[in-house]
Amino acid sequence: MTSFREDGALAVDWVASYLERAWELPVLSQVEPGEIRAALPASAPDEPEPFSAVLDDLDRVLMPGLTHWQSPRFFAYFATTGSEPGVLAELLIAGLNQVGILWRTSPALQELEELAVDWLRQLVGLPEEFRGHIEDTASTGVLAAVIAARSLQPDRRVLVVSEHAHSVGEKAARLLGLELRKVPTDAEFRLRPDLLGAEDACAVIATIGTTGMASVDPVPEIAEWCAAAGAWLHADAAYAGSAAILPELRHHLAGWEQADSIGVNPHKWLGVPMDCSVLWTRRQDVFRNAFSLVPEFLRSPDDAVNLSEVSIPLGRRFRALKLWAVLRCYGRSGLQQRIREHVRLAELFEGWVRDEPGWEVTAPRHFSLVCFRRDGSDDDNERLLERVNDSGEVFLSHTRFDDRYMLRLAVGNFRTTEDDVRLAWDVLRREATLLASLNHHNIAQIYGVEDSGETHALVSGERKVPTAQTSGK
Amino acid sequence: MTSFREDGALAVDWVASYLERAWELPVLSQVEPGEIRAALPASAPDEPEPFSAVLDDLDRVLMPGLTHWQSPRFFAYFATTGSEPGVLAELLIAGLNQVGILWRTSPALQELEELAVDWLRQLVGLPEEFRGHIEDTASTGVLAAVIAARSLQPDRRVLVVSEHAHSVGEKAARLLGLELRKVPTDAEFRLRPDLLGAEDACAVIATIGTTGMASVDPVPEIAEWCAAAGAWLHADAAYAGSAAILPELRHHLAGWEQADSIGVNPHKWLGVPMDCSVLWTRRQDVFRNAFSLVPEFLRSPDDAVNLSEVSIPLGRRFRALKLWAVLRCYGRSGLQQRIREHVRLAELFEGWVRDEPGWEVTAPRHFSLVCFRRDGSDDDNERLLERVNDSGEVFLSHTRFDDRYMLRLAVGNFRTTEDDVRLAWDVLRREATLLASLNHHNIAQIYGVEDSGETHALVSGERKVPTAQTSGK
Repeated sequence: MTSFREDGALAVDWVASYLERAWELPVLSQVEPGEIRAALPASAPDEPEPFSAVLDDLDRVLMPGLTHWQSPRFFAYFATTGSEPGVLAELLIAGLNQVGILWRTSPALQELEELAVDWLRQLVGLPEEFRGHIEDTASTGVLAAVIAARSLQPDRRVLVVSEHAHSVGEKAARLLGLELRKVPTDAEFRLRPDLLGAEDACAVIATIGTTGMASVDPVPEIAEWCAAAGAWLHADAAYAGSAAILPELRHHLAGWEQADSIGVNPHKWLGVPMDCSVLWTRRQDVFRNAFSLVPEFLRSPDDAVNLSEVSIPLGRRFRALKLWAVLRCYGRSGLQQRIREHVRLAELFEGWVRDEPGWEVTAPRHFSLVCFRRDGSDDDNERLLERVNDSGEVFLSHTRFDDRYMLRLAVGNFRTTEDDVRLAWDVLRREATLLASLNHHNIAQIYGVEDSGETHALVSGERKVPTAQTSGK
Repeated sequence: MTSFREDGALAVDWVASYLERAWELPVLSQVEPGEIRAALPASAPDEPEPFSAVLDDLDRVLMPGLTHWQSPRFFAYFATTGSEPGVLAELLIAGLNQVGILWRTSPALQELEELAVDWLRQLVGLPEEFRGHIEDTASTGVLAAVIAARSLQPDRRVLVVSEHAHSVGEKAARLLGLELRKVPTDAEFRLRPDLLGAEDACAVIATIGTTGMASVDPVPEIAEWCAAAGAWLHADAAYAGSAAILPELRHHLAGWEQADSIGVNPHKWLGVPMDCSVLWTRRQDVFRNAFSLVPEFLRSPDDAVNLSEVSIPLGRRFRALKLWAVLRCYGRSGLQQRIREHVRLAELFEGWVRDEPGWEVTAPRHFSLVCFRRDGSDDDNERLLERVNDSGEVFLSHTRFDDRYMLRLAVGNFRTTEDDVRLAWDVLRREATLLASLNHHNIAQIYGVEDSGETHALVSGERKVPTAQTSGK
């Protein structure tokens, strides 16, 4: 193990240095498609290479091709964190290389998974009757929930979602050959229960914190409709479910305890590295009936329920260890503190946007996501976003509804500070001003006014590294 | 990052020590159901705990609940290895915390995944037209392949497998609401193409290396039938596909290049830690049509194909990094050497069984799996296996066919030596002798012969730790 200890020291040092300088790297990768692959050998080597060669190429070749999800200046999609205890837990997980199939193939994996998701259940305030397990992503979790729902009523072929629901619902319907019914939303982008339609649905997916605007469907009314219609209710709280750790935000989750199944992703907002998506259900028996199929070669004298009997893969990683490590190393108070700070930062940013002439907040903010835009056309906003992201200083994403383009700033990285959010706002305003000046410049050119050269350099988007650094982390 | 460096050093040292002593731990966990969970707090802590507390509990509480897949004396199911470079790559993966959704969310992830699976394609000798990606497990890969197949012919509702195929086929059929047709096998447990039946199948799963006996279906004949029937052919080579790295074994894989899709698990026999299952297809366009559904909020100006468009989850981990690291740090020759040695050890064990009176090899051995049994009833063999595994010295599993119970010894851990295999054989014979003496003893008791006390102590199965150590690793 000499070389493992030496290589391990190199790897730990590499990750530590990476996390120390993540904030100063261009957040969105600036390479062209094919560039990374072309820089690597087309075939595997015949002879062994040292592990240090992997680290060298990580620095030399792969680094420019990374989009830095670990950067405190990553504000796109839903920002995430691979926290330190979570990262080190992954090392332990791989070192132990447990394969959870039956209980006996790793009793500790099975029991820690049940325990860790139960710890989280208590933290978010769900009732005891919910049993859980870990899926890779919410896509798989939603698919599993719909499979469970359909197993109860194979003849019902309609899956219902709001027009703002994540595409995973649509994907599940397509993969399972179900019909998708999209229900219109109200002015705050919430599913309208009065438009749920005929009571022929196999399942309804209610979203608590949609991916576009983090809107919250009226779960109590939807649950009532589902009960009357005999439809399964899945609450997709992949992002916002973590907010239930805060007493002051829990009211947004009202009614989710009435769902048949619920998904929350600790790999989104709780510091657990990819992948860790928790799926709870009040009806584990339905999952087991839908999924269990223990083949003879795996039979054993033990009576315990096996997690492979309630999900798609037969074998599972020891992901429970990282969820457990993160819950322990932050504790309830540590996680509350971070989520509360993210919400505060989002509120702050929202205030700046609201108070600035020429800018507009475009959706209600409940959590740590702000949707906004600059006065002007959709094209103007799209160009603005592209310039901001090309700068490498920060990374934001967008959404569109009713053909209206919106920018999104999502706070979610444990290392993000007020300075980082302020930088995002500075870059947005700077680029908006430059774009306006470019437009003016174009008009000026048409009318024969000369370009000083300076404007061009500023707006050409050639900068590949950050130029403004407002925090000294 | 001070504490990350310190905690990281502790974690690396913990894993190194674990791998050093893995061979001397009881291979199959000896705890009772519920024991691990009961030893842990029922709720998450309110305040943060140090990472070292996680390591302490790993030693103190979790260790007895682990079944040691990393032990060189693990011979059950298909033995695996989390190799050193693979383990350290997982640390890097978590440290970088990339989330592959669209190409732009991590160009390096997407391009390295395409590259690494192409390196492996070349190593196993598949034609260039096969494009690949990484799934978590073969269960998900088979499900995805069947979804792709069904998207071409939604009206065909039959999935065909051999009666020896892995349960993943049956699970896929059930989850997708398809009818499963099980085709009988010949004397060597191979699917009989003449019994494939009506040409109404949506897809056929041919297995190269079944989980029970590692039998090999006649892929060329099945491919011919599929071509005539217009059915999709998936070749499930989850375990045995890695053997194609050896020229002398490649003939077992004959015809797999005619399949529409192929699955091979580097987390089984190539030293990559869980999870890493490669899925190749000659028809990536079919997968893309079946799975792609890029929602608006994820649209980007890039034109590259996104891996989320050919599989179930929207987001993926940077698993490519560990496959790439393992292929580099072993090289073609290093992997060949290990697989060749495993096959040699299995052949050796097979010879010992064949030459020993009272023992029988029960299935042809093509790779590193030996199926065998002891003369006597199925119950006798089952009791024998239980005693062997309860000893903690080695861990083997079983299978059953036509109601005949067989023991299985699978060689697959990179750290397994001839001494470990010999230990397995010693323990098997010792326990068989003790069982026979116990039977004799019972008969003796019936006839009034006294128990010396010695026999009882030997056969009571109370030993929880290994007593024989034949190698000094």
